[in-house]
Amino acid sequence: MIKDDFIQFLEEGNLSIPKFLLSNYTKLGLNETEFILLLHIHSFLESGKTFPTPMEIADLMTISPSDCMETIRHLLKKGYLTISDEMDELNIKYERYSLQPLWEKMIQYMMERKQIEKIQHTEEEEV
Amino acid sequence: MIKDDFIQFLEEGNLSIPKFLLSNYTKLGLNETEFILLLHIHSFLESGKTFPTPMEIADLMTISPSDCMETIRHLLKKGYLTISDEMDELNIKYERYSLQPLWEKMIQYMMERKQIEKIQHTEEEEV
Amino acid sequence: MIKDDFIQFLEEGNLSIPKFLLSNYTKLGLNETEFILLLHIHSFLESGKTFPTPMEIADLMTISPSDCMETIRHLLKKGYLTISDEMDELNIKYERYSLQPLWEKMIQYMMERKQIEKIQHTEEEEV
Amino acid sequence: MIKDDFIQFLEEGNLSIPKFLLSNYTKLGLNETEFILLLHIHSFLESGKTFPTPMEIADLMTISPSDCMETIRHLLKKGYLTISDEMDELNIKYERYSLQPLWEKMIQYMMERKQIEKIQHTEEEEV
Repeated sequence: MIKDDFIQFLEEGNLSIPKFLLSNYTKLGLNETEFILLLHIHSFLESGKTFPTPMEIADLMTISPSDCMETIRHLLKKGYLTISDEMDELNIKYERYSLQPLWEKMIQYMMERKQIEKIQHTEEEEV
Repeated sequence: MIKDDFIQFLEEGNLSIPKFLLSNYTKLGLNETEFILLLHIHSFLESGKTFPTPMEIADLMTISPSDCMETIRHLLKKGYLTISDEMDELNIKYERYSLQPLWEKMIQYMMERKQIEKIQHTEEEEV
Repeated sequence: MIKDDFIQFLEEGNLSIPKFLLSNYTKLGLNETEFILLLHIHSFLESGKTFPTPMEIADLMTISPSDCMETIRHLLKKGYLTISDEMDELNIKYERYSLQPLWEKMIQYMMERKQIEKIQHTEEEEV
Repeated sequence: MIKDDFIQFLEEGNLSIPKFLLSNYTKLGLNETEFILLLHIHSFLESGKTFPTPMEIADLMTISPSDCMETIRHLLKKGYLTISDEMDELNIKYERYSLQPLWEKMIQYMMERKQIEKIQHTEEEEV
């Protein structure tokens, strides 16, 4: 029995999270609930479910569907998440979440951090 | 400049989370803060830091060091995490966190779930 | 320009390979070409392309399409790979590769290895 | 018994490979054997073994230790791999492999590809 569970587990696979993102989500302005919510959307996207409902996401979390919807709204507004209109092979329109704004914020932070470190370094040398 | 950031990002690498765990941490009795805290410990372990302080972990989260220590205590007590005594090559003792209890709880849940599904299925057939 | 490349790179994501599989593919009877070919199929499956052609796979490798087809045939015959018939939401049949036989072989090997280690251990104790 | 195997498997963890690298290693000038050899070094590095011997690597592959050494030499010479001198906490020198040159080649290829696509696009428009 456990062998079948193991195979199913392997078929489900893994979600890869950049360690840089895991170490810096708070610096990007996210709290734990928001970060995990984005991970759930990431995971849904990877398994081909491009527009999960707040209900489906909340089902995997300790928050209520209405809190989940509120958090999604907040993430959309603050620019961590976006919804794009796509067209499938049969020319049927569908909506999908995209995490592209999150990646942009992460890269932005990377670059600013380097800038700040450089300035601090220069100031220390001048003192 | 961004090229160097990109290389550093690649060198840091990724943390792989089983999708089964991501979808079921609430069923294992964990909330978002506790789950993320375990992910941080997982990430520290992978980069060779076997016993991060509550301060070091809290630094990556939105919680205070004392709340972090409290949560770690709770996770140790409830059996999601353990501390083991190890010996390095120079026979110097050191402590390290282990996530083995978490994996055990996950496997246990996998097996019980199957059992429950089977019972429900039998009952439905009998009705 | 490199920022856009970076985002595209992040959107493509990662393939997670169990370290146990990476360390033991030769013990499962696979050579490097066969193992990489299975990784390519794994990656295609994850990105929703369930039945890549030998041409599409060979395009990512140093082998010719006909050698690729030959290797796929070999992997199917030796039981590392299987093709299953599926039905989509519109009741249209399609074929997809499945790596389930590979996972089964891996688990089988895990269990046999333990058995062999146990026997060796008993024999050593008896001597 | 299989439960313990499963836990051990989870503790070993996964190696994350960027899908972009998996799809483009041939364009970077690598064949399957060379690519897998780099993945083995990557995996050794992640588990804290910074300078595995050709013997230890060959042991996980279908090639002989001398072929393995030859391939490593080739990868060092062609700039996919480098050896750096490091110092541990006790001021003892040690050598470690670094995959930084591989990441540099990958980023280089990303940028050139974009350049080439752009030129082709301009030429097409001009025709």
